[in-house]
Amino acid sequence: MRISFIVRPVVLSFDAMIMATTRQDIMLQGLDLLSVRGLDASTLGVLAQRVGLSKSGLFAHFKSKDELQLALLDQSARTADRLFVAPAMSRQEGLPRLRALVKGWLGWTTRAGLSGGCPLSAGMFEYDDQPNGRVRRRLLHLERKWRELLGALTQEAVDLGHLTDHLDIDQFVWELCGIYLSHHVSLRFVRDRKATRRAVTAFNALVERSK
Amino acid sequence: MRISFIVRPVVLSFDAMIMATTRQDIMLQGLDLLSVRGLDASTLGVLAQRVGLSKSGLFAHFKSKDELQLALLDQSARTADRLFVAPAMSRQEGLPRLRALVKGWLGWTTRAGLSGGCPLSAGMFEYDDQPNGRVRRRLLHLERKWRELLGALTQEAVDLGHLTDHLDIDQFVWELCGIYLSHHVSLRFVRDRKATRRAVTAFNALVERSK
Repeated sequence: MRISFIVRPVVLSFDAMIMATTRQDIMLQGLDLLSVRGLDASTLGVLAQRVGLSKSGLFAHFKSKDELQLALLDQSARTADRLFVAPAMSRQEGLPRLRALVKGWLGWTTRAGLSGGCPLSAGMFEYDDQPNGRVRRRLLHLERKWRELLGALTQEAVDLGHLTDHLDIDQFVWELCGIYLSHHVSLRFVRDRKATRRAVTAFNALVERSK
Repeated sequence: MRISFIVRPVVLSFDAMIMATTRQDIMLQGLDLLSVRGLDASTLGVLAQRVGLSKSGLFAHFKSKDELQLALLDQSARTADRLFVAPAMSRQEGLPRLRALVKGWLGWTTRAGLSGGCPLSAGMFEYDDQPNGRVRRRLLHLERKWRELLGALTQEAVDLGHLTDHLDIDQFVWELCGIYLSHHVSLRFVRDRKATRRAVTAFNALVERSK
């Protein structure tokens, strides 16, 4: 099974390789900005100020706000991949692997060293009613890939007899996404100390009635 | 039981009464703007343009962006109250009332004639990592009141024997909020035609395992 939920690999040109260190700093700062402020507020001007570059200096890396936002969304997904998707894939197939993935998913941005919440979840509420431009399409693509991965791992758990073969996989994934979103709100917005305990209880209940 | 989840009633001064019709138009347009664009993009300038007033004309109604945002958040809650909370309260106590409330809650903004999604849900993702200012506090207050209402109706269903008296009410409400958020994402962002069917299936499963 493919362990990444990103489709396109990162291919750097020679020029881009020379700029790689600066770019890495920019991406780190940019991802942090995105996690706290959301897509619309992640502008070239704000990011330039944050990394101590002129706006035209930042233009050498990103030609437009759209390009910056697309790069940051991809970076979010790559960070998640490295932080908890890849490690979960080394776990025993089926339910143990799915459990490890969900455990790593809940509150992953804090463990990634980000000051804010999940850029992809926040983006889905920011762009839900926006026209279907490049940024919305990229977000939707990443969300679909993510749900495909959750679905594939759930299917694996069914195939191995860890979950019932009558299971509606899409419904399982849909409810799992609800648990993640409710956890995000209770952890970051309500700031409820029981947030993670509640999410684990909800996930265990979902698994129990799917056996 | 109190049927509203708003604490403060709307009290209009004499001046405000004279301006009420204009204000009503502004609030309608403002709520629509908020539902589509979110809190940060709901500025006095954008709204003034939308309602065909000068920015200084709008200042007669709202002294600052904060005041506009607070008024619009309260208006969201009042609209929800009138549209589906009050009608649900006329239903038979216990599970029937809770079911009616959840049915009215899912996708309520479309039935309210708004172009976008739920301003309170989107606001919780927009303001999760913001400092604790007036807008964040108001959002949190409204969310707490809402969860209190959901909790009170769930408790009623327990008291009437419709749900088990071993039920963890807060956990039930927490999971219900997850179903609402997952529905919001699948309806408005993913634009999945099965969104409401999935939410109803999830809610029924939550109720079944709470009996």
